Parts: sequence; structure tokens; C-alpha cells
Amino acid sequence: MEELEIKGQKARKAANFLIRVSTGDKNNVLNHAADLLEKHAADILEASKKALADAEENGVKGALLDRLTLNEDRIGGMADGLRQIAQLDDPVGEVLTMKKRPNGLVIGQKRVPMGVIGIIYEARPNVTADAFGLCLKTGNATILRGGKEAIHSNMATINILQNALADSGFPAEAVQLVENTTRESAVAMMKLNKYLDLLIPRGGAGLIKTVVENSSVPVIETGVGNCHVFVDESADPEMGTSITVNSKIHRPGVCNAAETLLIHRKIADTFVPEVCQALKENGVELRGDETVKKLFPEAIPATEEDWATEYLDYIMAVKVVDDLEDAMRHIDKYGTKHTEVIVTENYSNSQRFLEEVDAAAVYVNASSRFTDGMEFGFGAEIGISTQKLHARGPMGLRELTSYKYVVYGNGHIRN
Amino acid sequence: MEELEIKGQKARKAANFLIRVSTGDKNNVLNHAADLLEKHAADILEASKKALADAEENGVKGALLDRLTLNEDRIGGMADGLRQIAQLDDPVGEVLTMKKRPNGLVIGQKRVPMGVIGIIYEARPNVTADAFGLCLKTGNATILRGGKEAIHSNMATINILQNALADSGFPAEAVQLVENTTRESAVAMMKLNKYLDLLIPRGGAGLIKTVVENSSVPVIETGVGNCHVFVDESADPEMGTSITVNSKIHRPGVCNAAETLLIHRKIADTFVPEVCQALKENGVELRGDETVKKLFPEAIPATEEDWATEYLDYIMAVKVVDDLEDAMRHIDKYGTKHTEVIVTENYSNSQRFLEEVDAAAVYVNASSRFTDGMEFGFGAEIGISTQKLHARGPMGLRELTSYKYVVYGNGHIRN
Repeated sequence: MEELEIKGQKARKAANFLIRVSTGDKNNVLNHAADLLEKHAADILEASKKALADAEENGVKGALLDRLTLNEDRIGGMADGLRQIAQLDDPVGEVLTMKKRPNGLVIGQKRVPMGVIGIIYEARPNVTADAFGLCLKTGNATILRGGKEAIHSNMATINILQNALADSGFPAEAVQLVENTTRESAVAMMKLNKYLDLLIPRGGAGLIKTVVENSSVPVIETGVGNCHVFVDESADPEMGTSITVNSKIHRPGVCNAAETLLIHRKIADTFVPEVCQALKENGVELRGDETVKKLFPEAIPATEEDWATEYLDYIMAVKVVDDLEDAMRHIDKYGTKHTEVIVTENYSNSQRFLEEVDAAAVYVNASSRFTDGMEFGFGAEIGISTQKLHARGPMGLRELTSYKYVVYGNGHIRN
Repeated sequence: MEELEIKGQKARKAANFLIRVSTGDKNNVLNHAADLLEKHAADILEASKKALADAEENGVKGALLDRLTLNEDRIGGMADGLRQIAQLDDPVGEVLTMKKRPNGLVIGQKRVPMGVIGIIYEARPNVTADAFGLCLKTGNATILRGGKEAIHSNMATINILQNALADSGFPAEAVQLVENTTRESAVAMMKLNKYLDLLIPRGGAGLIKTVVENSSVPVIETGVGNCHVFVDESADPEMGTSITVNSKIHRPGVCNAAETLLIHRKIADTFVPEVCQALKENGVELRGDETVKKLFPEAIPATEEDWATEYLDYIMAVKVVDDLEDAMRHIDKYGTKHTEVIVTENYSNSQRFLEEVDAAAVYVNASSRFTDGMEFGFGAEIGISTQKLHARGPMGLRELTSYKYVVYGNGHIRN
């Protein structure tokens, strides 16, 4: 596709420029972009109104319409996000290791930008500024391909960001938006190995699956979280309830919310009614196995499908398990390797759970909701990786970098 | 494909076992496997003879036939390789960071096995033992898919490795060989996301390209190296010649051998004849641009294609460039981001080259031949990555691991 070929070339050129710039210069661009976003908020709002009108005309409604909506507050949030990124440490240039080999050769491993990062995203126009900020701070050029519903808002935003770059003597093409929003442009992004070093999909499970299955550019898979809380025999019941309720209802629509509760059989008689009542009082619909159903008759019988479902809603599947092994088998079978929690007072069980459960983040006695770049202290987040290559769990600035080996010789040749 | 579905399930089960084993137990398996390889060398040699006979019948000859050949020495080398891996530090379990957040939550980042690693390789039967050793040491289960020419040797080798595992109480399926060597099984490996965490192609450029373009399993791209040596104006000419000759002829058939020599215009008159004569005396055929041709008439005129070719042979392209910028532009255009060398006595130029040239390894005043796991002090190597995601440059044991976050709470919930 010609548009992507041209944008790819320009991005590669911009990336060569970004390798050389100082952290101070990058921060100035970020702060200036924040100011311009606020100054020209009206331009974005006008574009957003047009986008919303088009969307409504095409029958878009509800949550999707809300995600498309921009207002002064949300634009202020975008600007603040950029200012926060400006304040974070720049990971680029950090020397990770440096050693002298027996032959006198000095070999260092140095953190460098990834190069050119592609991002395919859906209906959230705030991702435009957000992704720009994280990628610029780490010295990466970015090619953004947003959804067709947000194209007007995205174009208005990119225009401002490119002005901020140009004002500061940076190539405006350090961030570019793909204007073609057909399926064709998404497919072309996935095959743009010649220019892209990394492709990150941000959006629903369908988008992520499509990108993982079809991209020949290296991908970081983000997001799907079928997370479990296992309340062990020795758990403090009050803590078990409080962690379960928080994991479920603090923000049910996000990937680190818990979807299934596993309860040790030996405490089922007392704990099942207690926790189910608390969940119910918080508006959660329960889907239970036979034992749960007996102990809490209001629960709807759970089907095989329930164990595998990421509800992202006020619904929770509840199952009684025989022991730790049984709980870990269930998690291994149905989990998505995102976040898994055990509530226990038993030392050996806590250690086995941390060691043996295969997930990006494993917890003892804390809510699943902490799997988040801000909560982990990264200051910002581009997503939560559920794959094992390169980055796992919340991804901050460091996860947008690569490294290179720098080798200092003195005429060394190999014998 | 049914074979891969079954092998995938078994590998996943074996991976769950390997998460829990101790380093000592893994080392025992490696040493025992080394002993068994030597004890049953005759089985492998017999299989190898069959493989060679089949291959010759099918018209295979030359280098490929040599790569297929196994003898007592090579089997001894495989065994020694396993013993060496047993002696290396186990990277699994290393805690990379651990910190207490303001809310008291303790968050650690711990190195863990990748899980199940798939390897698609061509005609080198020694890769079978080698890949097994590296993956087992890092707690990974492995599914190997070798070429059809080596299937007999590979099966004999796998049989011995599986016996070593079973003897030690490990699941034999910690390493498995795909017996179907048709194109179909390679394609099925590339789509085995359900079971594979990582796929590594080892072999020629064609194999690597096919895997990168078609795999939906995360891939590490290894190998292709169109490496350059740039001899700057200020270089010590003797060092420039010695590094160029070593980079070219020490082992021309491998990816870290240099393919193109770039020479600063201001030293061309004297340095071109000197270095070309030295290369010629070492059996290297020269392909030069016009200036080189004038200064060293025996050089064959270089075509556009020469600049982009990884000869892997006693051939070198030679070009005179205007300055550092010109050299870096050439490298950016034709390089494969593997290894790039500058020979210079100029401080600023050395720093700019290290900083701005985008490659896995950048050198000042040393031969390109040092880009190698052993030379970097890793003790072993699974390949050299030319991509930026996850691992770059020589990959040792650490590069076969991932990490997980372990979170220690005390009833923490998110407000």
C-alpha cells in the first residue's frame, strides 16, 4: 500500500533523527505538545463532534459512543498525560551491563529505542496522544492506525502533535496517522516488516487475535484477562471476601478484574454463602458449580463456557475445588496467563502458587486490580502483555526499548 | 495436525513439571544425556549412515552432505556441549527487581522459563542435542522439527535424550521430535500458538524468511548478516587491514563475517591497494566501485546487487565513501542490523558510530567475528538475533527465559 510505504520511509528517517536527540529536547516537545493540545482544544472538539454525528448516523451507541467522545476534560487529561511522561526518567542510553573479556575486549549492553513502532487501535481517540508520548520519550517513531469512527478526532490531534514536533526542530513524521482506515491498511501494517520493528494492537479481543494471527511484524499481545481468585483453606475469610469483591467490582470492565472465584472445599460450607452474599450485595450475578448452587441457591448453574469467559461485567463464576493442586489445574486450563491471586495464610501454598502458576502476575493476599503500570510504579503504561517474549505484564517506558551491544577494541582480531 | 496437537499437549505438561525442578536435577539430566550419547554413539552413527546414503541417492552433495555427516568426533562434541551447559549458571529464579510500593505491596520481577519452545532447523543433526541442552537448562520443554535429510540421525539422538530424561524421573516429553518432515508440519508449528511460547528458526535465509512471514507464534529472527567494516580517515592502516582481513576470511561462511568494506575517500589512494592486495593474498575475490577499480584494477566492477549480498564466501565488496555520514547512510541502506565495525582513531567518530548505527552489535577497532555467544562470555549460544524484540545479538541462556511479577500483599485492595 503506497500510503504505508511512504509513511514507513518517513518514519524510518525520523527514527534515525530520534536516536540522536537529548532527553531534554524530547521533554520540551512533550510539554509543548501538551500546551498546544490545550490551546487548540476547540479544533479537536469540533472534529470530535463531527465524528460523533457520523457515528450516531451509522447507528453507533452506548459504550462505543462514550469511548469516542472527547470533551475539555478528556483533552486536559491527554495534555496532563504528556506532561507526566516528560517527568519520567528516560530509559534510553542506560548501560545494562559492561564487562572486560579476558582478551581485553570491552563489551557493553546499552538500552536503545526500538525504532519504529506501529499501533493499531480502536475507538479511543486519547490513545493517539498517549502512544505518541510514550513512544517519543523512548526515542521511537510511531505510525498510528486508528479506527474509522475516530478518524476526524485523530487527524485533529495528530495535526497538533506534528506542529509541536516541527516547532521544536524535530521531524513532524516522528508521529504519523494512517488516513486510510479500511481493512486494507490494517493488513498492510501487519506486513510492514521493512519499516516496523514492533506492532502493538490496542483494543478488543477480536482485534488482538487478528493482529497476532496475521502479523509478520513482531507483536506484543496485550490484554485478555480471565483472572482467578483462589481462596485457600487457611485464608482469613474476611480478607478472602474483601479481595474477591475488590477484584471483581472495583472496575469490572478491565482486563485485571477477576472473573472466576475458586474456593477450597474444606471452607466451602461457611465461605461460599458469605462471599456470594457480599458479591450479590455489590450487584454481581453468580454462576456456580453444584456445590455452590447447594450452598447459595440464588446462583445460576455454571456451564463449561462460564469457566472460559472474560465477562468484563458484574458476573462471577464460582467453583469449589479440592485443594491447591485442583485450583492450579483449573487456572492452567482456563486462565489467560494475565493475573492470578491466592488468598492464604499457608506458607508452602503461597510459595507453590507464586512458583507454579504461569501468569504475568501472581499475587498472594492482594486484589488482582493492582496489575497496572501506575500501580507498579512505572508512571505510565502502554498496555499489559500476556505473552512471554520481550515484555510480560504492565509495559512502561522500558518495555518500549531494545538494546544493542557496544564493543570497544584495540585492534582485536579473532584467532 | 494431529501429531503436533498431541506433542503440544505433552510438551505443555512437561513444561509444568520443569517449572518446579531444581538446577541440580537439570544438570544431572544433562550430564547423564552426555554419557548416554557417547555410550550409544554407534546407534546414531548407524542412523547417520542411513541418512547419508539416502541423501546421496537423492543427489545431495558438497556442503549440505558435510553438514549432515556425524562421526565419533561430532558426537563427542555434542556430549561435551551438554556437559558445558550443565556447568553454566542457571538463570531461572533470579530476581531482577524487587521493591516495596508506597501502599506496602511488595512487587518483584523474577526470571522464569519461557515455557514451550519450538525450533525449526535444517540439516545439522547436532542442533538436536544442542537445543535440547539450552532449553532444558532454562526449564523449557522443546519441540524440534528438523529437516527430512537428518530424520534418522535426529530420531536416534532424541531417543537417547528421552532415555536420559526418563532415567532421571523427568518426563521424556521435555524434548520431542516432529516425525513428519513435510512442509505441512512446519506450517503447523508456525500456527501452534496454543502450545508454543516461542519459535526459533535455525538455518538458511529462506527458512528464516518463511518462518518470520508465516508464523503466528512469536518468533526470534536469527542470522542474516550483511556486515560492514568502515575504515575511517584516521584509522591506523595496519589495524584497518588486519581487522578487515580477519572479519572476511576467519570464517567466511558464518553470519558475522564481513561482506562489504567501506573506505574513507581521503585515504583511498594508499589504503585501497594495500587492503585489496592483502585480501587477494588471502584468496578473496574483490568487487569494487569505480574508484576502487582505478586503484586496484584486478577488482571486478561491483553492481547494485553486490552491496546487498551476504556472500558467505571468499568475496568482498569494496566501496570508497566521502565521510562517516556517507558510510552510515550506506550501512543504513544495505545492512541487516547484525554487526557493524568502524576502524578509527577519531574519538567523535567512534562515539557517533556506536550511537547512531542501528545494529545488534557495533564495534570500534575490532573484528566483526566477535559477535558470538562464546566470545561474549555466555558460555553457549542458541543463535544471533537480528530483531529488536526480546533479544538482540548473541542469545545465551538468559535469552531463553521470560519473567513474571510476584506480588506479596497483606490483604491489599485497590481504592
